[in-house]
Amino acid sequence: MSLIILGVDPGSRITGFGVIEINRGQITHVNHGVIVMEASDSFPKRMHDLGMAFREVMGKYKPHDVVIEKIFLGKNPDSAFKLGHARGVIMYEAGLADSKVHEYATRAVKKGITGTGAADKEDVQAVLKVLLHLQAINRIDASDALAMACYHAFELKKKAVLSRAVNL
Amino acid sequence: MSLIILGVDPGSRITGFGVIEINRGQITHVNHGVIVMEASDSFPKRMHDLGMAFREVMGKYKPHDVVIEKIFLGKNPDSAFKLGHARGVIMYEAGLADSKVHEYATRAVKKGITGTGAADKEDVQAVLKVLLHLQAINRIDASDALAMACYHAFELKKKAVLSRAVNL
Repeated sequence: MSLIILGVDPGSRITGFGVIEINRGQITHVNHGVIVMEASDSFPKRMHDLGMAFREVMGKYKPHDVVIEKIFLGKNPDSAFKLGHARGVIMYEAGLADSKVHEYATRAVKKGITGTGAADKEDVQAVLKVLLHLQAINRIDASDALAMACYHAFELKKKAVLSRAVNL
Repeated sequence: MSLIILGVDPGSRITGFGVIEINRGQITHVNHGVIVMEASDSFPKRMHDLGMAFREVMGKYKPHDVVIEKIFLGKNPDSAFKLGHARGVIMYEAGLADSKVHEYATRAVKKGITGTGAADKEDVQAVLKVLLHLQAINRIDASDALAMACYHAFELKKKAVLSRAVNL
């Protein structure tokens, strides 16, 4: 028995996603990609398109767990507000598909993947490539999503939450 | 031919809604109410419950237009961020049902309903009761939603957008 994990990096313009599988302790890369909304569309239309596209992703990979970055409101409340909409859509669709939603802070994910919370995008990608046996991560927007999925897999292994069920 | 308008006052704890019908220039009250999320539930679970409940409301009233308050980010970016999630869910579900989403600023709505943008909740309610022939608006959380629906009806009449189609 294996566990499918879908990491999501939500955005109101581009939403990245990364899918991994964990089976007997082995993490394998399944796929990754981006959902791109039309900048010229109205905001409600973009949220609709995001939800529809994300529903397709959910239907294709049927993840047990969906992992989203935990947000801390920074200097730009307007971005956070827009991002909130996209996160709401993702959470709702994940719930509709009976997937459990997990949230982790970016810093924890970076630290878990690279050993340091101060790692930059390139550091994270370099580790992910090794970890997932990838030649390249062809959509940079998907790397944060893949990182989150992998971090969640580490957490599951660490906590051995599902040790009996999936032999992590 | 008539037009059904659904006003929504989204919130991550309580979401109010108000339904009106406009037919040959006459505005009539159809229903109003609130969707209440469990405070003890996780945020993703609340977003899921909100979407499911809102889908029921959409299915029951089949509104042509959905009207949401336009938000200006104020002093509390954390509230705005949470609210963004609820708005995303509402926009997404409205889109799934092929309803058009309209947004108006609260001040414009208050002014349109009462004559002054500085009106308080009680002023708005008093006018709504007269306008919609209601003894009382039994859920105070729904009054902003009803106000938004009515304001949109006024706007449609003013612009005569649908004058030929529905004889507003």
